[in-house]
Amino acid sequence: MKLNVIFTLGALLASFSTLAHESETSSEWRALDANKTVLLTLPHGKVIIELAPQFSPKHVEQFIKLTKAGHYDGNKFYRVIDGFVAQGGPEDGSRADKLVPTLKMEGDFTTDEQWQFTKIQDNDLFAEQTGFKDGFALAHNPSEKKAWLTHCPGVIAMARGNTPDSASSHFYIINGQAPRYLDRIMTIFGRVVYGMNNVQAISRTAVIEGETPIDKKDHTPMISMQMMNDVPKDQQINIEVKNTEHPKFSEMITNRKKREAAFFYKKPPPVLDVCQTPVLSRIVK
Amino acid sequence: MKLNVIFTLGALLASFSTLAHESETSSEWRALDANKTVLLTLPHGKVIIELAPQFSPKHVEQFIKLTKAGHYDGNKFYRVIDGFVAQGGPEDGSRADKLVPTLKMEGDFTTDEQWQFTKIQDNDLFAEQTGFKDGFALAHNPSEKKAWLTHCPGVIAMARGNTPDSASSHFYIINGQAPRYLDRIMTIFGRVVYGMNNVQAISRTAVIEGETPIDKKDHTPMISMQMMNDVPKDQQINIEVKNTEHPKFSEMITNRKKREAAFFYKKPPPVLDVCQTPVLSRIVK
Repeated sequence: MKLNVIFTLGALLASFSTLAHESETSSEWRALDANKTVLLTLPHGKVIIELAPQFSPKHVEQFIKLTKAGHYDGNKFYRVIDGFVAQGGPEDGSRADKLVPTLKMEGDFTTDEQWQFTKIQDNDLFAEQTGFKDGFALAHNPSEKKAWLTHCPGVIAMARGNTPDSASSHFYIINGQAPRYLDRIMTIFGRVVYGMNNVQAISRTAVIEGETPIDKKDHTPMISMQMMNDVPKDQQINIEVKNTEHPKFSEMITNRKKREAAFFYKKPPPVLDVCQTPVLSRIVK
Repeated sequence: MKLNVIFTLGALLASFSTLAHESETSSEWRALDANKTVLLTLPHGKVIIELAPQFSPKHVEQFIKLTKAGHYDGNKFYRVIDGFVAQGGPEDGSRADKLVPTLKMEGDFTTDEQWQFTKIQDNDLFAEQTGFKDGFALAHNPSEKKAWLTHCPGVIAMARGNTPDSASSHFYIINGQAPRYLDRIMTIFGRVVYGMNNVQAISRTAVIEGETPIDKKDHTPMISMQMMNDVPKDQQINIEVKNTEHPKFSEMITNRKKREAAFFYKKPPPVLDVCQTPVLSRIVK
């Protein structure tokens, strides 16, 4: 009996040691899977998007299918509102538009007690908890056992009509301060990991009162939308993003709350806005 | 005595009636004062800024003086970080840079029980209350009797060194998700009321690992910085902004919390992020 306990303890220690070892050796950076990475080419630059099939499988499946079929090539950003969204898709009512099946909402998902994420904050305005998982900003209400991707700048989500399950292929990218009120009622299915400046440079189609609207022909087109894996090898851009499950990321979070640099002559409140906490990218040659 | 009470009540009713009358006749829109409005001309478009002398008098005074002296004409945006700031000013260590006196912090101000603002939210992550005054987003901690302008997208603030009173003429404009941790430790002295898209199109000078940095000669220049009143009359742009003290603005706030449109098939939490609550502008011919 005693031996057995020691053995069990030994096994436990061994398993801790394995975990610690994995943490140490798994990289601080995570390479994106080219099969889940999108290259959007705009007239003024490139935008790279990481898709999130682990959170919104059906939306990602349809988006990849459409992308591979060339559905988005030549589409335009027809609704671009400063500080809000750049929305694009095929011409309204066109054949390409009508052929796409509608999707069931994937705005949130159910969690259980085993579910884990890198928590950064309790009780922001919109959720009981916020944090990151697989590089994506998300929120969690343990009281409801629900979690969801949050509408931070750079997320891509499907547009829809008034009914929940009416999204098809029109999408938007958030270009300004996080409109978190859209959380859970829209399906986010990825995020921009490179070229957010190019997203923000998409021509605004909505102008203020008294200003001349831009002509429809000047709406920013999508030159092409491609899965990175379908791009010729020598033109592929290999992106890595910070591994939000790595201890170094948690360390960054802790330091960011402390603000110990001399510049902070008075300390701000030790809190973090999930949408203002960067998950860095880098290009790997 | 009874008469006196009635008289007092009458005076009170008369004063309520005057207040109501003023609310009804004062406009839903407020015209900007051209003496407190700045026109920043960039190679790719115009940016209009409303200054806030009521909150940061010394910073505004110095900024106006420098603007009128042509201090900023030809300056460059030399530190432009996606999702954070576009910072500009004279060349480091240049004569123009050295001549400017430093400013004492005006990061927050003291309130008393008479102090009023259009409150929109209690207990956001960074403050006890948030709301608007004179068109500017601000936060208020009644427990401290302190209020301050908040770092929302589009605010302009003076950059500084590590010591609090070291700002002079270098400034930044917030181009991404609100970095509220800078509240109170930096002096905000105005906000962009037109051309935020042009601010967001300023060339980024900070690039990600693996990317080629842009050449210094390609940093976006300020073609000119002018007080609107000094612009030839026929080239002036007259801007009006929503009057945040008008009942219609409060009504907008209330509706925005309720989200009664059919589109909101599930209601989001009835809260507002002060930096995601628009104060609209319009151009008046």
